[in-house]
Amino acid sequence: MQGNFSAQSVVVTSANRYMGPAISTLFEQEGATVTRDNGRLYTDDELRTLLDPAPDVLVVNLAEPPLTAAVDQIEDGDWNSLFEALVHPLMRLVRYVAGPMKTRGNGKIIAITSAAPLRGIPHASGYCAARGAQNAFIRATGLELAKYNIQVNAIAQNYIRNDTYYPDDMLDSERFQAHLKAVVPGKRVAESAETAHLALYLASPHCTHMVGQILPLAGGWATTTG
Amino acid sequence: MQGNFSAQSVVVTSANRYMGPAISTLFEQEGATVTRDNGRLYTDDELRTLLDPAPDVLVVNLAEPPLTAAVDQIEDGDWNSLFEALVHPLMRLVRYVAGPMKTRGNGKIIAITSAAPLRGIPHASGYCAARGAQNAFIRATGLELAKYNIQVNAIAQNYIRNDTYYPDDMLDSERFQAHLKAVVPGKRVAESAETAHLALYLASPHCTHMVGQILPLAGGWATTTG
Amino acid sequence: MQGNFSAQSVVVTSANRYMGPAISTLFEQEGATVTRDNGRLYTDDELRTLLDPAPDVLVVNLAEPPLTAAVDQIEDGDWNSLFEALVHPLMRLVRYVAGPMKTRGNGKIIAITSAAPLRGIPHASGYCAARGAQNAFIRATGLELAKYNIQVNAIAQNYIRNDTYYPDDMLDSERFQAHLKAVVPGKRVAESAETAHLALYLASPHCTHMVGQILPLAGGWATTTG
Amino acid sequence: MQGNFSAQSVVVTSANRYMGPAISTLFEQEGATVTRDNGRLYTDDELRTLLDPAPDVLVVNLAEPPLTAAVDQIEDGDWNSLFEALVHPLMRLVRYVAGPMKTRGNGKIIAITSAAPLRGIPHASGYCAARGAQNAFIRATGLELAKYNIQVNAIAQNYIRNDTYYPDDMLDSERFQAHLKAVVPGKRVAESAETAHLALYLASPHCTHMVGQILPLAGGWATTTG
Repeated sequence: MQGNFSAQSVVVTSANRYMGPAISTLFEQEGATVTRDNGRLYTDDELRTLLDPAPDVLVVNLAEPPLTAAVDQIEDGDWNSLFEALVHPLMRLVRYVAGPMKTRGNGKIIAITSAAPLRGIPHASGYCAARGAQNAFIRATGLELAKYNIQVNAIAQNYIRNDTYYPDDMLDSERFQAHLKAVVPGKRVAESAETAHLALYLASPHCTHMVGQILPLAGGWATTTG
Repeated sequence: MQGNFSAQSVVVTSANRYMGPAISTLFEQEGATVTRDNGRLYTDDELRTLLDPAPDVLVVNLAEPPLTAAVDQIEDGDWNSLFEALVHPLMRLVRYVAGPMKTRGNGKIIAITSAAPLRGIPHASGYCAARGAQNAFIRATGLELAKYNIQVNAIAQNYIRNDTYYPDDMLDSERFQAHLKAVVPGKRVAESAETAHLALYLASPHCTHMVGQILPLAGGWATTTG
Repeated sequence: MQGNFSAQSVVVTSANRYMGPAISTLFEQEGATVTRDNGRLYTDDELRTLLDPAPDVLVVNLAEPPLTAAVDQIEDGDWNSLFEALVHPLMRLVRYVAGPMKTRGNGKIIAITSAAPLRGIPHASGYCAARGAQNAFIRATGLELAKYNIQVNAIAQNYIRNDTYYPDDMLDSERFQAHLKAVVPGKRVAESAETAHLALYLASPHCTHMVGQILPLAGGWATTTG
Repeated sequence: MQGNFSAQSVVVTSANRYMGPAISTLFEQEGATVTRDNGRLYTDDELRTLLDPAPDVLVVNLAEPPLTAAVDQIEDGDWNSLFEALVHPLMRLVRYVAGPMKTRGNGKIIAITSAAPLRGIPHASGYCAARGAQNAFIRATGLELAKYNIQVNAIAQNYIRNDTYYPDDMLDSERFQAHLKAVVPGKRVAESAETAHLALYLASPHCTHMVGQILPLAGGWATTTG
């Protein structure tokens, strides 16, 4: 058992997309009180409503389609939307809870990011840049907040079933199945519950020594961190 | 809960040292049938006795003092003992179970290695080389065995209490406490149960998509993999 | 000799700061025709003036003070200025030359970034995020453009003398000297010519197989890439 | 120009194979006095003859075919020969010159290793383990010797033409060409001179701040270090 979550408050962002549903459901099954949030911008007002008082566990689950394009064809609007959807809200959310968590002397922050920047994906350089900014931010804040007994880590996933990047009809295509066999050592896409269980491990009281870590979860597609 | 281990057979090597006691105890608490082995060389005869039939989970926990020395002062005997204690037995153990696990269609192999080669430690180049060989072996076999539904991963730890590297009297010294504050973001040594819980996560049925992974568990001392 | 640069056109951005002076000077000594640019925003008009036709070598040297702050004290203005000074111009510059370089069938892009995100620096999470975005962008575009015979790489430096991060009066302080001895294996700050010579190697015709690489150059402070 | 090598003594091991010919030839062209060694075991007697006095630059170029096999089929003889050919001689060579280089106050050690352990290659786990040991040894000794003004680094290459791993007839095969297009972003194998030029950069007096570094040189196949 990873610990009793019945007294734990958990906030999950983008609760109705990407890894939100699977994570919310699992923490609820474990007895936690889960706030399923579906904000986007995280203005000061929204943050106050959502994060006062700071939850025991904050799961920053942010998603935006990869907006693929050759680097010479990147659209300013696409580029900006990646940073506005993925990077800036992550900072705002972490910034808001860091102070109260420091005062309280504990806290868990888990970001659901991507393995894309760990390997690099042609025609997805904007997406890689934004996810890379997230991962670097998590590493730095994880080291900074460790001494306050706050654990900040990221799950850098790929090839996990979800509505944003791997919807069911894509997974079923012959082309995708061939791609999977060629580049993913595990030869398959995993269920979203895998991410939820890793988040549960990271949120447990038995995980205090792992901080600032970017954890690849990608069927072996990427195993070195970035 | 990380899954019901009551029907699981688990073999833990060096069960009476390094991470052996903590891991054996936790898997027993979770209901697993644990074989606490204390072999050293893992000859063919020993392997047959220990690993026929192959367990559901094999925890390769091997330890040898770091035998610190300036690189120009490395003793051949020390160098060889590191490879004989850490590297070659890991290969023999994994080689022995890989075939049966492939036939069976599942298996979990968890190596307890070290974060030392991820950062590099002066005056411990022999130790880093041997632990680096372990990590590289785990990465390659993890990718190779992924498609057979066998998950092979390593816990690359540092600054975790244990008899071999961080005995209690060392931890209490003023010099070590100053070192800890200077170089470990978490500012403390973690208990051995932390490693055990990470091993439990890796052994659970909910962890199938993480393969060939070297997981730093070091209070932030190392966060990039090697 | 790294090759004859006498027929080469080189554009260096922020030519009067950070690594600009050292890089511009060395390439000129090697016979290249260097355009020392000092733009900031890289609007479409500026890009047209600067990069038509595309130079043989583009050195994207962008700098912004690290704007250190505890994560809960990050100012929106500081955060945004890091992305506006470091991340978005990098994309705009690379985007502008990528097409012509693809058509031409060759090109060299060298970004001067930072090792900060490779290790993570407490109280510099905004800076790490922005430099991490740069490094991830370079990795992805490096892989994307490799097949067009365009080599894109980054020099991820730290502890190199420069006006922006390591001005002379800081280097002379007792406190900084103690820090250096504690955390940098080389125990010293290197001269800016070191970065220039690495850039020269990357720009040479003998370097075609290194692509999408983030090269730490930090006296051993960071040796694993991010 | 990377510096005048006319007063420099350079020892290259395995001079007649792997990267030996290309490296020896280039350093000679640059004016260095090159000792082309073809030892294998590096006994104390051989080391004395070869390395007294210690050369300015030691290039540890060691090669052994990858001896591919499924992990459950690894032969003890193959496994041992990889460590005997790649790992132990590296230690003996570095150990022998480290003392004199420390006394002298300068030195360059360049190991030609492999990118294989950075990514992990199925059916080459023994090779990955041995090359991983080399890389980890270089990282640790590089950090240890940095403060003595000795620069120790490794070139972790792949997809570079050489007699041991990529002989000409293999490169010409249709199967290999398809493999290249599928997994190497640069879509080609580079000439051995590429490695030689990177070694020249590392050996130059302008490279003092890069230490303990494992440099991938693999056409983008691997860009993160291990």
